[in-house]
Amino acid sequence: MQPVVILSFSAVAAAFAFAVYLYFWVKKQPCENKRILEVSSLIRAGADTFMKREYGVLARFAGAAAVLIFLLLPEPIWNGRLSDHIAVTAAYLAGTVLSAIAGKIGILVAASANGRTAEGAGKNLKTAFLIGFRGGSVMGLAVLGFSLLGVIAVLLITADATILLGFSFGASSLALFAKAGGGIFTKTADVAADLTGKVELGIPEDDPRNPAVIADNVGDNVGDVAGMGADLFDSNVAAMASALVMSQALDGGLGANTAMVFCYAALGLIASIIGIACARVGKKGNPTGALNASTYTTTAVFLALTAIFTCFFEGFQWRIWGASAVGLIVGVIIGITTDYFTDDSKPIVKRVAHASRSGSAFTILSGVSYGFISALPAMAGIAVSALCAWLLCAPLGEGYALFGIAMAAVGMLSIVGMIISNDAYGPIVDNARGLAEMGGLGEETIRIADELDSAGNTVKAVTKGFAIGAAGLTVISLLGAYMSEVNESLSALGKELLTGFDIMDPTVFFGILIGASIPAVFSAMLILGVDKNAQRMVEEIRRQFREIRGLKEGKEGVKPDYDTCIGIATDGALKELIPAGLMAIAATVLVGFIGGPSAIGGFLLGNIVSGLLLALFMSNAGGLWDNAKKYVEAGNEGGKGSDAHKAAVTGDTVGDPFKDTAGPSINTQITVVSLAASLLSGLFAAFSLFG
Amino acid sequence: MQPVVILSFSAVAAAFAFAVYLYFWVKKQPCENKRILEVSSLIRAGADTFMKREYGVLARFAGAAAVLIFLLLPEPIWNGRLSDHIAVTAAYLAGTVLSAIAGKIGILVAASANGRTAEGAGKNLKTAFLIGFRGGSVMGLAVLGFSLLGVIAVLLITADATILLGFSFGASSLALFAKAGGGIFTKTADVAADLTGKVELGIPEDDPRNPAVIADNVGDNVGDVAGMGADLFDSNVAAMASALVMSQALDGGLGANTAMVFCYAALGLIASIIGIACARVGKKGNPTGALNASTYTTTAVFLALTAIFTCFFEGFQWRIWGASAVGLIVGVIIGITTDYFTDDSKPIVKRVAHASRSGSAFTILSGVSYGFISALPAMAGIAVSALCAWLLCAPLGEGYALFGIAMAAVGMLSIVGMIISNDAYGPIVDNARGLAEMGGLGEETIRIADELDSAGNTVKAVTKGFAIGAAGLTVISLLGAYMSEVNESLSALGKELLTGFDIMDPTVFFGILIGASIPAVFSAMLILGVDKNAQRMVEEIRRQFREIRGLKEGKEGVKPDYDTCIGIATDGALKELIPAGLMAIAATVLVGFIGGPSAIGGFLLGNIVSGLLLALFMSNAGGLWDNAKKYVEAGNEGGKGSDAHKAAVTGDTVGDPFKDTAGPSINTQITVVSLAASLLSGLFAAFSLFG
Repeated sequence: MQPVVILSFSAVAAAFAFAVYLYFWVKKQPCENKRILEVSSLIRAGADTFMKREYGVLARFAGAAAVLIFLLLPEPIWNGRLSDHIAVTAAYLAGTVLSAIAGKIGILVAASANGRTAEGAGKNLKTAFLIGFRGGSVMGLAVLGFSLLGVIAVLLITADATILLGFSFGASSLALFAKAGGGIFTKTADVAADLTGKVELGIPEDDPRNPAVIADNVGDNVGDVAGMGADLFDSNVAAMASALVMSQALDGGLGANTAMVFCYAALGLIASIIGIACARVGKKGNPTGALNASTYTTTAVFLALTAIFTCFFEGFQWRIWGASAVGLIVGVIIGITTDYFTDDSKPIVKRVAHASRSGSAFTILSGVSYGFISALPAMAGIAVSALCAWLLCAPLGEGYALFGIAMAAVGMLSIVGMIISNDAYGPIVDNARGLAEMGGLGEETIRIADELDSAGNTVKAVTKGFAIGAAGLTVISLLGAYMSEVNESLSALGKELLTGFDIMDPTVFFGILIGASIPAVFSAMLILGVDKNAQRMVEEIRRQFREIRGLKEGKEGVKPDYDTCIGIATDGALKELIPAGLMAIAATVLVGFIGGPSAIGGFLLGNIVSGLLLALFMSNAGGLWDNAKKYVEAGNEGGKGSDAHKAAVTGDTVGDPFKDTAGPSINTQITVVSLAASLLSGLFAAFSLFG
Repeated sequence: MQPVVILSFSAVAAAFAFAVYLYFWVKKQPCENKRILEVSSLIRAGADTFMKREYGVLARFAGAAAVLIFLLLPEPIWNGRLSDHIAVTAAYLAGTVLSAIAGKIGILVAASANGRTAEGAGKNLKTAFLIGFRGGSVMGLAVLGFSLLGVIAVLLITADATILLGFSFGASSLALFAKAGGGIFTKTADVAADLTGKVELGIPEDDPRNPAVIADNVGDNVGDVAGMGADLFDSNVAAMASALVMSQALDGGLGANTAMVFCYAALGLIASIIGIACARVGKKGNPTGALNASTYTTTAVFLALTAIFTCFFEGFQWRIWGASAVGLIVGVIIGITTDYFTDDSKPIVKRVAHASRSGSAFTILSGVSYGFISALPAMAGIAVSALCAWLLCAPLGEGYALFGIAMAAVGMLSIVGMIISNDAYGPIVDNARGLAEMGGLGEETIRIADELDSAGNTVKAVTKGFAIGAAGLTVISLLGAYMSEVNESLSALGKELLTGFDIMDPTVFFGILIGASIPAVFSAMLILGVDKNAQRMVEEIRRQFREIRGLKEGKEGVKPDYDTCIGIATDGALKELIPAGLMAIAATVLVGFIGGPSAIGGFLLGNIVSGLLLALFMSNAGGLWDNAKKYVEAGNEGGKGSDAHKAAVTGDTVGDPFKDTAGPSINTQITVVSLAASLLSGLFAAFSLFG
């Protein structure tokens, strides 16, 4: 273990050092335009306000959860040892705090990178790209560094992987609310701004007269930067935690398999650093190409480094390396198929744009259809990678097969630093485009910012597919972690152990059907939240245009009241995010106490299967509609202002909460439910109606 | 067995006699308006053309399938006995033929009842209701009679329930294509007629100037009458077949449990006859109430009769009666919850109508959300009824638990005669409304026809929920039938038997993920089929209005070319229905040969779970949008012509293929795949890559 621990700490140190270097590099870039400085500080203030209030609410929630955890986990406190309870609770709180810090850092750097990227775009594409990408990379490195640091610290201190599940639960419960809250905020503002601005008044996107425009930009930050960061922090920690639960069982403590998990995670961090450092685009180059090239570089470096270490380290198994490699390659393939369904240079987007000529109903119908179809390759990819990992590792002995699946997830997530960097790049350049418009930087600058933004959108679709795929593999391995946790409890109680979850067992089946409904209800609650909230904001925007004199005409010195809009988005998001999250957890608890441990196995399966299907459907359909609208706006099928354009805008509006609120939040919902099930397994084993 | 056989044959004879009586009663009603006679013969001719061509295509498909079945089932012909092969093939063909005849009868009577209902509405509500309902009942009784007759004949002749699976497969493969083909036809015409007529030209629904109006009315018949009849014929046969496979295993031949299946089915038929005979509405009464009252009557009669027979027959078990009762009651509850989400006197429809004020994107978003939420109660209902049936029957001994679930499905489907009657009533009165409009029967008549039509729509949503619930329970028991079939093959091959399908087995998991994707892809193919086809028809309608002089103005003697529109709907439906059906079967075969019998178990589970979820979502969201539009048209939220109305029409257009094409076809897709898996289980047991 020792060399691996040193390697891990060095990797974390390198990541933090590089992140600090990049942060100051970004800060050093010039930002002088007054209007941009002003707007950019408005955005930062808005984001701060939201984050402060959100974290305030979450702190109370986490506090309440911590009390429950302290009393009930790993078993009711009157049966257990006090030190265990303190450890789980502390790990839980550490998970929430680290996740929050990572999100905060992302917002911090994104808010200073956006204005600088806008001014960079005034110089040339190359500079602007570098500022945007490096800004995003700070977030990527922070997330990856904190997750590895947290996991290794918890494991070295407690030497107990169950405690790690507590840490992971902290990370994912925060991610659930950050993703859902951020998602509701961002889409409230986006939908309301588009509906009133683009559709009703016909003013351009990011027009400073629109009272929702600052809220829209704030939303990009809190939804895509902080939310997505928390989401991938959570997936990454969960993947490591479930792999470590199994490796500890295999090693009977800390051994070669555990070392392998850390070693691979550390090498993923190093590969991401190299990939980030290599990202470049020529003066007239193609930013999408540059982002993809760094992803492929990271992938290749990771595969090479892990092969070398597997070759030289004692006890590292080639078959497990194979499982990681399969996971990573399938992740990249899922990304590519997602791209096929959402890229506007490919046929599907063109077909949806063409269908829009016949009216918005056809935009919706064709988008829904292709969204459904797009789920198949990703589902098949996850299925095949799980099967391959299993077949590769099963010959190593009992327990290795599931460990193989966990390592496939670790492999898929190894390049997550790169993925987050690409992802956080998106909202930075999106904001930069808005700032260029509001700062009046001229057409050429806006054109460059547009090009950067479009690359961000394309890459975003791919990274979302990747994130969902990774979550899929992770939760499969969490299912394994759940089984080993529940068996520990069952053997302590002297009850019969579970050997699996048989579909033909009625309690399992019962759990499956209920579990499968939850992601649908969860998504519906979030979408209705956006819907309700956006309608409130639409009323407010209409009011401002009606009541503030000279606003519509753009009279010099007349400003809309941005803050009220930010306030509406904030209040609504906080009000709507809690019930959806609690519903998912409550359903888990209910099914567990009714059907017992087997029902929960089924519940998790149903949840994973329908969750993956719906998440893929919604993310891809949303991306597809977004790009179909952009394709029409680029002058196709009648171009801007045509009936096809109106229909495409309707598609985009429907797609917004699909792809940025519900779709990606489902990931986190699945992880939270899986971890809650593992943590509560002792209670379900002891008390249940039919279990 | 003997008394039960006599009872069954008597019930079948009574059903047929009653159906013939009702048919002639309908025929006796006056129908004298020339215009109605003319249009109604146009509708009949259109339906005939479509059915002839559809059955022509299906006959070729069934012939090819019969050859494959003859060569390969129950095992490759070079291993088996010739007589078995002949029996399975003959049973398969009998299943397709009976299903086709039942559909044909429905069309026949619906096409003569529609005009008479329209004229009856000229007299009063009471008469018109009776004609419409009794017309529908002929179909209901025919379907139920043929299904019981077919099942009992096959079982008495062959005494082998596996052969019965062949019969059931025949019924369901025909149903798959009838439902999908009819569904594509009806929605092609409906969507195209609405888009060009209502939206573009602002002429009323069913305006005779619209070239698609006859095709639209034909569609109601081929989609809702023939298609829904084939669907429920199939579910009913499949439920009996799977119950009989298990009862034979329990009885070791024909015994008390087998007798119980037949007895309950016969009593269901008798209860339906009584329910149909009792249906009445006062002169100013409420038709929805009348339809629901007969459903409740049938339910009560069934429960009472089965209780009496269970009391007096030797070997009939009360616990099994309990399972049937649970199934039936849960079916009714599912119907009621569906009603809550789709009835325009309840809050959900009003909310969606209200959201339409903000634009069509909000109509879609809120409809999708409530559609998702509406799946939960039905899924939970199915889960709970399966769990209760299991818990009730498990104490009777090994094998009884699954038999209990099968009997819950039989119980739920026992009132299917009543359900089909209600369902076929819908298109008859829908047609009648159109005929009243086209025949110029005056406003009061149209108002009465409207009232009848609205009751049809409300009841349709409920029956659809019921049909999906019944299919859900049926396929769970088919999963049990599949396991006993596959174990028979495995034991013949000397391989290890399956004890269940463990989620943690990677081949099972592989199957689940692929199986879950299939209903999504299947629905997408059907929706895209409607989409493509409707666009072709829209072009044609626009052409006619452009080129036929005086058509738009409604000049005396100028008629549109109805036949070309019927031709487009027919050709398109036949072209699009085959690939979707084949895709589902091909996926089954592929997964079976890759992953073996366990993977197929998982595949079926994934298919059931995601299929139920999507079917409920799409049927309910579609019904919701339909009624939200009607609610706006009734003068709410701005009424006809307002922006809210336009948005609501978009919702309805999206909902049409959801609720009438994809949603209800998924049922059949699941059944077909389940039966194909059972029939092919011998092949999968013998040959597979990783099984």
